[in-house]
Amino acid sequence: MIFVDKLIDQIKAKKSHLVVGLDPVYNYLPPIYKWKHKSIKSICNSILDFNQKIIDAIFDLVPAVKPQIAFYETFGLEGIKLFNDTVIYAKKKGLLVIEDAKRNDIGSTATAYSTGHIGRITIEDLDLPAFDVDAVTINPYLGSDGILPFIKDANKYDKGLFILVKTSNPSSGEIQDIVSIEGKKVYVILAERIFNYSKENIGVNSYSSIGVVVGATYPLEAKQLREILPYSYFLVPGYGAQGGKASDLVSFFNKDGLGAVISSSRNIIYAFKEEEKKLNDYDFALCTRNAVLKSGNEINSILRLNKLISW
Amino acid sequence: MIFVDKLIDQIKAKKSHLVVGLDPVYNYLPPIYKWKHKSIKSICNSILDFNQKIIDAIFDLVPAVKPQIAFYETFGLEGIKLFNDTVIYAKKKGLLVIEDAKRNDIGSTATAYSTGHIGRITIEDLDLPAFDVDAVTINPYLGSDGILPFIKDANKYDKGLFILVKTSNPSSGEIQDIVSIEGKKVYVILAERIFNYSKENIGVNSYSSIGVVVGATYPLEAKQLREILPYSYFLVPGYGAQGGKASDLVSFFNKDGLGAVISSSRNIIYAFKEEEKKLNDYDFALCTRNAVLKSGNEINSILRLNKLISW
Repeated sequence: MIFVDKLIDQIKAKKSHLVVGLDPVYNYLPPIYKWKHKSIKSICNSILDFNQKIIDAIFDLVPAVKPQIAFYETFGLEGIKLFNDTVIYAKKKGLLVIEDAKRNDIGSTATAYSTGHIGRITIEDLDLPAFDVDAVTINPYLGSDGILPFIKDANKYDKGLFILVKTSNPSSGEIQDIVSIEGKKVYVILAERIFNYSKENIGVNSYSSIGVVVGATYPLEAKQLREILPYSYFLVPGYGAQGGKASDLVSFFNKDGLGAVISSSRNIIYAFKEEEKKLNDYDFALCTRNAVLKSGNEINSILRLNKLISW
Repeated sequence: MIFVDKLIDQIKAKKSHLVVGLDPVYNYLPPIYKWKHKSIKSICNSILDFNQKIIDAIFDLVPAVKPQIAFYETFGLEGIKLFNDTVIYAKKKGLLVIEDAKRNDIGSTATAYSTGHIGRITIEDLDLPAFDVDAVTINPYLGSDGILPFIKDANKYDKGLFILVKTSNPSSGEIQDIVSIEGKKVYVILAERIFNYSKENIGVNSYSSIGVVVGATYPLEAKQLREILPYSYFLVPGYGAQGGKASDLVSFFNKDGLGAVISSSRNIIYAFKEEEKKLNDYDFALCTRNAVLKSGNEINSILRLNKLISW
């Protein structure tokens, strides 16, 4: 089964379009994990326990988690071990793992990245996956030379891609919104090219595993991109902490009530921060579970209101 | 001393503008490293030995090595350990390490990447570097939100950045060459912004540690960029294997005979492949040393011919 169909199955089964960002930041951890750590390894062990408790609290509620590898690379080699252990744990709990890595390079180098993240190492008699996530985000600045090697592996190994098109941050327009002499913005030119990739391998739900990243903070751009890219799933960051509103999310979806997963991290995994202000005793994992239910309901309510879903 | 001054010191001491790309690919390794490996760890151990012998053969001849992290990530966690060990070994031999990682993200996420690659982990009483390379390449598609956190650490920790501007690959123009309504190409608009970053922190040699990547395959663009970015060092891939010619390299340099490092990987580290065709007995490391001397001389000859250096 291709990646996007696995994703849609999970969305339907769990009645949720929410993806939980696993972005561990030491300063935000619950106090039980914070003491005078004597090594990076000790910090990473604490974070692994935190990640596992978060996963335990939400695995039955959401289709996927999205670990941002930057928050693991920040700890060097120990951090990558933590990343690897987190991915293994999430998959064991039945979650899809969308790795936010924004990798990019060309030719054999892009293939090397792709092998490590979504492909398999095939050397001599060995045939093994490396990080083995279900989908990965990639950056398109190098053009199709940098995208096609990932698409090849995505198709070969039933994995997913989310290509950065219009990112959620304030300065995303500096390059992405440059208007060409033909009157098209850079992100539109890119999206039109991605459409050609997306239509090559359509699953049973009429979607492609070649998705895109479109920030929740840009609903007008999302509306336009939704028309250019009917087959692509949108991975939508920037909802919550970055200012994207639930009411704006409608334009990211198709008429079938599918086509987008909304990613939220800080508002979910650090939801206990709100409780902490009021109570001495709180369960951080339960706070996260409640935040997932609340955000999931917010998204579903908006879709229901717009008659996109019947749940 | 800021990064770019360390780089220039090495260039002058070693009389070389060549940077050796450490891009290990199993299939290209010398036969002594190829047998029925039973694990990824065993393969990575072989590659570490290969990398160390390459470093031993060239450390006194070039200012820096450029490991492309994709070729390490391809082996997952074991590959990152190999990367880490390779960086430590190269630094111990007095080489600068320019990590080709093309990392990119925004805000606190970009800071997390930056901490891991060129910054320091400062948590509780700990104050440690993670991968601790001397410079890193980054991708600008997300705009200044994605660049400034790296610049902050580069300035704070005397590290270097090379921002992708015009990459060496055939499809680099798909986004980078889009002409804006004002008549400027995307890479030019980007370069003009980078100029503002570059002029903030100039070293004793009149260069900035905020450099750019410009492919050897685009000498005309390099000429234009050289004028826009007088203070930025150019990291120039695509010389050799990708078709960039020595005679075209002049336009990447400034009148002072500085301003560019030329990166070459496959032609150097797999130089033994040519010998292998002719001889049964050859020393792969010596082949690499000879290839470094040859390429280094080629570059210096062109600069001498154009009266840019007197060596």
